[in-house]
Amino acid sequence: MVRVAIAGASGYTGFELIRIMGQHPEVALTTITSRAQMGQRLDDFYPAFRGHFELVFQEPDPEILTRNADLVFTALPHQAAMDMVPALLDRGVKVIDLSADYRFRDPAVYEAWYQPHKTPELLTEAVYGLPELYRDAISRARLVGNPGCYPTSIILAAAPLLHYGLVRPETVIADSKSGVSGAGRGASLAVHFCEVNEGFKAYKVCEHRHTPEIEQELGRLAGRPVTINFTPHLVPMSRGILSTVYASIESGVSPERIDEAFRSFYTEAPFVRLCRRGEFPSTLQVRGSNHCDLGWRVDPRTQRVVVVSVIDNLTRGASGQAVCNLNLMCGLPETAGLAAAPWQP
Amino acid sequence: MVRVAIAGASGYTGFELIRIMGQHPEVALTTITSRAQMGQRLDDFYPAFRGHFELVFQEPDPEILTRNADLVFTALPHQAAMDMVPALLDRGVKVIDLSADYRFRDPAVYEAWYQPHKTPELLTEAVYGLPELYRDAISRARLVGNPGCYPTSIILAAAPLLHYGLVRPETVIADSKSGVSGAGRGASLAVHFCEVNEGFKAYKVCEHRHTPEIEQELGRLAGRPVTINFTPHLVPMSRGILSTVYASIESGVSPERIDEAFRSFYTEAPFVRLCRRGEFPSTLQVRGSNHCDLGWRVDPRTQRVVVVSVIDNLTRGASGQAVCNLNLMCGLPETAGLAAAPWQP
Amino acid sequence: MVRVAIAGASGYTGFELIRIMGQHPEVALTTITSRAQMGQRLDDFYPAFRGHFELVFQEPDPEILTRNADLVFTALPHQAAMDMVPALLDRGVKVIDLSADYRFRDPAVYEAWYQPHKTPELLTEAVYGLPELYRDAISRARLVGNPGCYPTSIILAAAPLLHYGLVRPETVIADSKSGVSGAGRGASLAVHFCEVNEGFKAYKVCEHRHTPEIEQELGRLAGRPVTINFTPHLVPMSRGILSTVYASIESGVSPERIDEAFRSFYTEAPFVRLCRRGEFPSTLQVRGSNHCDLGWRVDPRTQRVVVVSVIDNLTRGASGQAVCNLNLMCGLPETAGLAAAPWQP
Amino acid sequence: MVRVAIAGASGYTGFELIRIMGQHPEVALTTITSRAQMGQRLDDFYPAFRGHFELVFQEPDPEILTRNADLVFTALPHQAAMDMVPALLDRGVKVIDLSADYRFRDPAVYEAWYQPHKTPELLTEAVYGLPELYRDAISRARLVGNPGCYPTSIILAAAPLLHYGLVRPETVIADSKSGVSGAGRGASLAVHFCEVNEGFKAYKVCEHRHTPEIEQELGRLAGRPVTINFTPHLVPMSRGILSTVYASIESGVSPERIDEAFRSFYTEAPFVRLCRRGEFPSTLQVRGSNHCDLGWRVDPRTQRVVVVSVIDNLTRGASGQAVCNLNLMCGLPETAGLAAAPWQP
Repeated sequence: MVRVAIAGASGYTGFELIRIMGQHPEVALTTITSRAQMGQRLDDFYPAFRGHFELVFQEPDPEILTRNADLVFTALPHQAAMDMVPALLDRGVKVIDLSADYRFRDPAVYEAWYQPHKTPELLTEAVYGLPELYRDAISRARLVGNPGCYPTSIILAAAPLLHYGLVRPETVIADSKSGVSGAGRGASLAVHFCEVNEGFKAYKVCEHRHTPEIEQELGRLAGRPVTINFTPHLVPMSRGILSTVYASIESGVSPERIDEAFRSFYTEAPFVRLCRRGEFPSTLQVRGSNHCDLGWRVDPRTQRVVVVSVIDNLTRGASGQAVCNLNLMCGLPETAGLAAAPWQP
Repeated sequence: MVRVAIAGASGYTGFELIRIMGQHPEVALTTITSRAQMGQRLDDFYPAFRGHFELVFQEPDPEILTRNADLVFTALPHQAAMDMVPALLDRGVKVIDLSADYRFRDPAVYEAWYQPHKTPELLTEAVYGLPELYRDAISRARLVGNPGCYPTSIILAAAPLLHYGLVRPETVIADSKSGVSGAGRGASLAVHFCEVNEGFKAYKVCEHRHTPEIEQELGRLAGRPVTINFTPHLVPMSRGILSTVYASIESGVSPERIDEAFRSFYTEAPFVRLCRRGEFPSTLQVRGSNHCDLGWRVDPRTQRVVVVSVIDNLTRGASGQAVCNLNLMCGLPETAGLAAAPWQP
Repeated sequence: MVRVAIAGASGYTGFELIRIMGQHPEVALTTITSRAQMGQRLDDFYPAFRGHFELVFQEPDPEILTRNADLVFTALPHQAAMDMVPALLDRGVKVIDLSADYRFRDPAVYEAWYQPHKTPELLTEAVYGLPELYRDAISRARLVGNPGCYPTSIILAAAPLLHYGLVRPETVIADSKSGVSGAGRGASLAVHFCEVNEGFKAYKVCEHRHTPEIEQELGRLAGRPVTINFTPHLVPMSRGILSTVYASIESGVSPERIDEAFRSFYTEAPFVRLCRRGEFPSTLQVRGSNHCDLGWRVDPRTQRVVVVSVIDNLTRGASGQAVCNLNLMCGLPETAGLAAAPWQP
Repeated sequence: MVRVAIAGASGYTGFELIRIMGQHPEVALTTITSRAQMGQRLDDFYPAFRGHFELVFQEPDPEILTRNADLVFTALPHQAAMDMVPALLDRGVKVIDLSADYRFRDPAVYEAWYQPHKTPELLTEAVYGLPELYRDAISRARLVGNPGCYPTSIILAAAPLLHYGLVRPETVIADSKSGVSGAGRGASLAVHFCEVNEGFKAYKVCEHRHTPEIEQELGRLAGRPVTINFTPHLVPMSRGILSTVYASIESGVSPERIDEAFRSFYTEAPFVRLCRRGEFPSTLQVRGSNHCDLGWRVDPRTQRVVVVSVIDNLTRGASGQAVCNLNLMCGLPETAGLAAAPWQP
């Protein structure tokens, strides 16, 4: 059994991590911490967990977190993560960080979009935790930067196209739509039921911090720098992200070539499911699962390909993917703890 | 392994049965049938199941259903169930029927609220599948009538009060609120998104067919006939039932006596969870699980007790309870396949 | 033209008051105040109002509020209202207070459920602003206590039954369900979209502060003290209240007598609409209007009558009713500014 | 008073037309027809209208429709509209058709995306009913083709950019998101509450019939043929469309030039509201109104402009715009009947 601790376990991402741990045959969740809920029983804070877990929120201290753990998930805000991670690694555990702090190769990019980085030297070592792109490196990693939710949905949609050189990288546009849980559990007017319900909107247009993360990975796939437009929107629903990705195809690329690219790129990917031709996925069909479902179509009128990807933002976009990374880092089957079917309706 | 078949597997109840089977360590789902979807792959009909099941909908024929099954779930409409069940029993399988056809002891009651019964003789044998009340009888049963969703939520809320004689049975009022999936997957104006959204309403006031089912069980608990008011309402959400049950307490009954009644009645019930004093449950905390969570309060001003119960109408109110009954009928642990924590948010 | 000011105009109730003023042919809205938004343009705070109003939030000062006003709406929290109202009345304006501070005849009742009252002498003068019960007194009033949203829905449902002595007052139970806007516009975990969505729940069971307000009015109608059970629930929708009211009928009362009671009690009530026999209303059919729609049924099995009422909690349950009171107080037609049809879907 | 009839009045578009008529000071609604509801009272079919209208659905016959009308709205399905419109015009009334049948200048385009056209000669006469583009022509028209909901939101977003030659027409991409009422009131699995709720999806990718309508108008604005990508999505909400429009700016075009283009193009447009710089609109702020609110931003990194437009699909996207066209055709003020502020929340 892999012994696991979670730092920052009281939010939606923490809930989802704990829920998945409860189904995982090879993992024992030993420790959860939360500064705000310190001392409280988990099942008082989340009555949903009554009868399932006996845990109590503890102080978010490296010593406590590593005492009974082989691996620690850090589900902390940006900045707080990099304050904690080095001390955890020093104590010999593996770390999967769910913040943005260890997702970037180039500290300058992180610093341009976030703030000064305190441990830039760790960026060289950290692996970007998208299994479809870095399965082997993750398997050997001590520190994984778990991808953002939007980037996961967009990179998986565009990867085959860029990897095989089928589209012009500078034409990529990603129009994304997310459920509200992506904003976290903190109270604010922006997530008030009456402001969200019937109130579809775009936000952080041309300035969302997931942009450089997407560009980093698309650039690696394309073999050269890529600059994109990324527009996030808020959907009146709790869970799910759908990204609609547009790109102009290179001259002469046939729809069949595109189909083939998706099939061959994802041959070994247990969590990527391809729609039949002409079908497009709904967020409903991946809810509660680690799947990313993809549909696409070439428009012969405009010579663009349109790819639609759906994920559950809390599972594939955060905690499920983190558990998948744990599986790889600890030599477990990639799908351990993640085999349950999606929820519907 | 228990081999299982489902007759009428294409609706929401069928989906939920299949989903749970996929997590059940002791069950193999071998056969699904659906007249409307006959010949279609399950994962074409429900893309959510892609990669999880290789099944194809077959003809709803007793021979086909029993060929590779030890137990059959019949998730058919009223009437269609009693056309099918005798033939299944004759072929030696156990049956859990999710319709109303085998929930009543007295054929006259069934016939007064539904239609003529074709196999009244089976009503003597059929066991009402509410494990908290009939655990032993279910364990020995060949045929179980799986309870309705509303009755499950109301009977569990009122049972301790009536069993211990703490309230006046003729004062019981049950005001229930259900998510839309309770209406099934068939298209109709009543379930059109734009008619449901922002459109809370009561329906079938004083005439819902779950009334006699609730009265049958409350009467058994009280030791005498009970007549109640039951008012169902439709909530703009997909899953969940909350029932608010009112009853006048017998003179001299203290709040502590009520607390004790709930605790002792449900000592051995793994799926009933009691709230702390002064707390009341939300449907959110049981979603996707077989739990029934209960909160209650005695109002000293009116000498009434108010009990609030929540269940997931598709899990505890139908398919999860059916699997629990399967566990009991087949000598498996009561919680097998049902141990996963609820989903949130 | 009646010149009007609003104290505390930045919440949902304020928005709704302003919106209705914009359609009112006989009213000029001159002044809005808000401590938190002081100095901000209304249409910056609420872009919905761009092009409709040129107002700026001012300081909530009695001098400012009364400078250009014949009547002031106070849409302030409990307690803040009674700090403001006397100073407004002293300056010679009429006041409609939307808080609970002027709804009670007996200061002791107010003080038992709220806090000490600072101006108990005004309670003698204040009129409870439910036009169907107090049309004449409202017409002559200088100070109106605008009813609570739940009380409006419940009192209108039960009034004919108690007024004509058709039910036993001590058997009244009111089970109410409200949209989220009833909780106001303040941010909190309780109104976070992800906590509300799919999370139906009861709250303040047996202890909601609207209880004594309902009892005061039902008691007046019955001619003797009435004690009830009132249970509020939160519905995942923005607007609307549905109350289901139960009462045991007096011996020998026929369904026809009940029908007649509703018809004759509401003969002159332009905003109360009665359903046809066997029909029950949905919150959708009153959205954005000042209507209260009523349906009812006598259950011959239990000798109880079940009444269902629906209102829009922000319109009939607050701002629309306040405007109706303004109309009466200022000698305008009762329906002025309130004649537009409901919104659907 | 302008006397008005509606053919096909039972759907959501019909409801919205009737609702607006009820507030219109210069219009008398005399006749409504519906094949399916013929003979039924409007307020039995829509209890929301009880007390507001005394109308009965009549047979959809040209003679009946024109008997008491100066202008007829045809809210019929495609094809049914062109069967009816010529007979109405022959009887001397003006017609505003809400289907696609009279939106196209070139019959060949209509026939390529819809079906054979029966009255192509009327296409020369018909005016595309987007007041911001064709105010004068509409004023003189006998027949107006009322724009589609998606086209309205997209054309208004892109018009200034193309009119002033600020973007490259071949780079336009429109990613649109609509509430469910856009699908109409007919029952189907696609609009079942449980399939929509938490189920965000794209549909008719690269093949939606609104594409050629958008291209026709963008082409006129650009002065040359335009081919675009248009992707519609279904949002779990009742009302509202948000379109996110992308285009590459011509070399040297500054953000200030773009700002100026929007301001000058919409100087005289009472229903187009421009956001402040850096702000983007939500569908919530236009609900129930005829407004189109626009926000935009130039991305210096990609040299693209992103425009976000929001409308209420039933008001500005259908019935409100139709009433605006009536106003222009009948010499009434453009905003008559449409001056009420949006609804919130």
